[in-house]
Amino acid sequence: MPVRAELLAVGDELLYGDILNGNAAQLGRQLADVGITVTHSGVVGDDIETIAEALRAALGRADAVLLTGGLGPTQDDLTREGLARAAGVELVRDEFLESQLRHRFRDLRRNVPDMNYRQANLPAGAEPLPNERGTAPGIKLELLGGIAYALPGPPHEMQPMFASSVLPDLLRRAGEPAVVVHRVLHTSGMWESAVAEAMAPEVQRLAAQVAAGQDRNPTIAFLASGGQTRVRISARAANRTEAYKLIEPIEAFGREALGEGLYGIDDETLEGVVHGLLLERGETVAVAESLTGGLLAARLSETPGASETFRGGIVAYQAELKDQLLGANAVARGAVTEETAQRMAAGARERLGATWGLATTGVAGPTESEGHPVGTLYLGLAGPDGTQTRHVQLPGDRPMVRMLSVVQALDLLRRTIQR
Amino acid sequence: MPVRAELLAVGDELLYGDILNGNAAQLGRQLADVGITVTHSGVVGDDIETIAEALRAALGRADAVLLTGGLGPTQDDLTREGLARAAGVELVRDEFLESQLRHRFRDLRRNVPDMNYRQANLPAGAEPLPNERGTAPGIKLELLGGIAYALPGPPHEMQPMFASSVLPDLLRRAGEPAVVVHRVLHTSGMWESAVAEAMAPEVQRLAAQVAAGQDRNPTIAFLASGGQTRVRISARAANRTEAYKLIEPIEAFGREALGEGLYGIDDETLEGVVHGLLLERGETVAVAESLTGGLLAARLSETPGASETFRGGIVAYQAELKDQLLGANAVARGAVTEETAQRMAAGARERLGATWGLATTGVAGPTESEGHPVGTLYLGLAGPDGTQTRHVQLPGDRPMVRMLSVVQALDLLRRTIQR
Repeated sequence: MPVRAELLAVGDELLYGDILNGNAAQLGRQLADVGITVTHSGVVGDDIETIAEALRAALGRADAVLLTGGLGPTQDDLTREGLARAAGVELVRDEFLESQLRHRFRDLRRNVPDMNYRQANLPAGAEPLPNERGTAPGIKLELLGGIAYALPGPPHEMQPMFASSVLPDLLRRAGEPAVVVHRVLHTSGMWESAVAEAMAPEVQRLAAQVAAGQDRNPTIAFLASGGQTRVRISARAANRTEAYKLIEPIEAFGREALGEGLYGIDDETLEGVVHGLLLERGETVAVAESLTGGLLAARLSETPGASETFRGGIVAYQAELKDQLLGANAVARGAVTEETAQRMAAGARERLGATWGLATTGVAGPTESEGHPVGTLYLGLAGPDGTQTRHVQLPGDRPMVRMLSVVQALDLLRRTIQR
Repeated sequence: MPVRAELLAVGDELLYGDILNGNAAQLGRQLADVGITVTHSGVVGDDIETIAEALRAALGRADAVLLTGGLGPTQDDLTREGLARAAGVELVRDEFLESQLRHRFRDLRRNVPDMNYRQANLPAGAEPLPNERGTAPGIKLELLGGIAYALPGPPHEMQPMFASSVLPDLLRRAGEPAVVVHRVLHTSGMWESAVAEAMAPEVQRLAAQVAAGQDRNPTIAFLASGGQTRVRISARAANRTEAYKLIEPIEAFGREALGEGLYGIDDETLEGVVHGLLLERGETVAVAESLTGGLLAARLSETPGASETFRGGIVAYQAELKDQLLGANAVARGAVTEETAQRMAAGARERLGATWGLATTGVAGPTESEGHPVGTLYLGLAGPDGTQTRHVQLPGDRPMVRMLSVVQALDLLRRTIQR
């Protein structure tokens, strides 16, 4: 039996736009992944009758409603009351929940106002859902011929409760055991259009299957952010093994088609992969930065344990410092040249005692410099076998040029040591 | 007459959680600012009857509905059809809009499929709203005793259309001419609770006014992000002068109460203020970084024109480099000490030839180091009159400790040169 679900978020702060309804996006994605259709998603304010009315409308259309928010201890947390009103039942103090709260507050050595025990109230007939990360239990209640699950608003409390208590229950009701697995292929140094073109034959194959009436399963999505493009392959099946079988041929195709552009899968990051490759080879890197102004060093030091492979860096923002600290000869020859990038890379390698020296120089904007347009980037990479350079013209404004420059620099190093 | 408004976003991609409903937050905030109450916000998928049904429900409760999305040229853009269905009218091709589209596509030299002219269809009796940033016109339609405005989904098209066509019309209907102005007070080096405590008397004064039955106007909000706390004062009045008169006493109170914690107002940034102060004094800064790994330099080079006051920096991630590049004596005396922070600051100042040398050393995590817990931060600041240090214990994980360390460092420099 297909389950139709609706989402209902409760909170004035959502209506006023003080916070974004990220819970709806999270839940929508995860429900879509298991084939549960979400047809409406709503937001209402902190008012008992409005909540109850929205619940009645939702359960008139759908089988299940997932509420988020309004379970806290203060007077404006009214989801419990709204549920009870819609179900036509009373709120009842749950003694077990109350004693749990009492223990919890005692452990925290906090003097807790009586009001907080409102969190132990449940609509008659409801079942509490355990909250591993906070004090407000969730609520599961059958009403109006359907089912409602009320989850806390903070995403770090909502998410585990959804995964452990709500999703399994919904899948049981749907009668279709289903798991969804994803595989993410990470690329760098390829524009989104090039990634899409490389994957096009598989995208077309799946589209033809859908056109022929088959399920939209597996699926391929392209996600571009931070100057990198990810390919997400998702598949749904009765168990993980079956689901991965659907993913495998697409992944194999992608590994071949993306070639050197592919740097990692799933949770891997570009800086993490560079760190891992250097560690494997017993090598280190040092940087010399101009237009990236420290962002490249910051990225290389992001990974825990980075000090094993990252020596450090020199941010030489003014031409004269490029000469003095790195021997770049930039004052005489211009800061934005291939030669300066090379000398900066060699200077960083020697003076910081690293296997590799990686350098950035160029024009971040907002205005051109030395006759070079905004977005001009020269990279230098010095290594045991000499130096190489890369020249790229990047799109975007100052923050985007700086961010893309960092990705280009890491990509140059990665491709060189991965070969 | 108070206007009650509802929001209705159209698009499967919102239900599936592929994108966040940022339009709802934007519109909610701006409507709340002018005193228009939003009581429901909904999302529905790309289906004519679902859109029509949601419109009927919304106009049964409210006076106005603002729709976003579903106005594009493809078959799954169905907001026009949904509006026509709810109003019980036909879609009619608008010849003026069609000729506009024809000119527009000709200018772009694009061969445009006939399908794109769907964007010239309007429900009978509707009025088009001009779109300055895209091809899809908006729609204004009186139906079911209320009014509906349909706006394009892309925020950069939606926002100007809302500001120029929808908001003035809504305010006319409300019969209350109103402008809303904001003043933002930026603080650094103060925890959110300290900022809230400083402003408490004014918050209480306004709360007492509301309790006595007055409008919630002006308002004070505390916004914490990026390790800094902002105080936003908002006021509504018939014109800007009147509105600023409401803000002035609160702003004056805040300037006094926040003291040195206040670094700027409205669009000012911490790094921009530091840059401006240095520029005024004809001074420069150079940095020496350990746990921040380049983030401090990146922040100081974010402001356009930063090269006038920012000399550059040295990221000495390994103790031996702190000694070699900065003369820090860290190998012998420990990297995480007050003395090392001082020596790093002095080293940066001398070797990079700056008025000020600013240094960070500490433990970003994930594990403790040299017996110091995660979150330990030592700052050093060397200047014309000697060096000073600051020791702080910061909360959070590795990325948060690094980010907060940058703010603490900038705050130390700012307070010193602002005195």
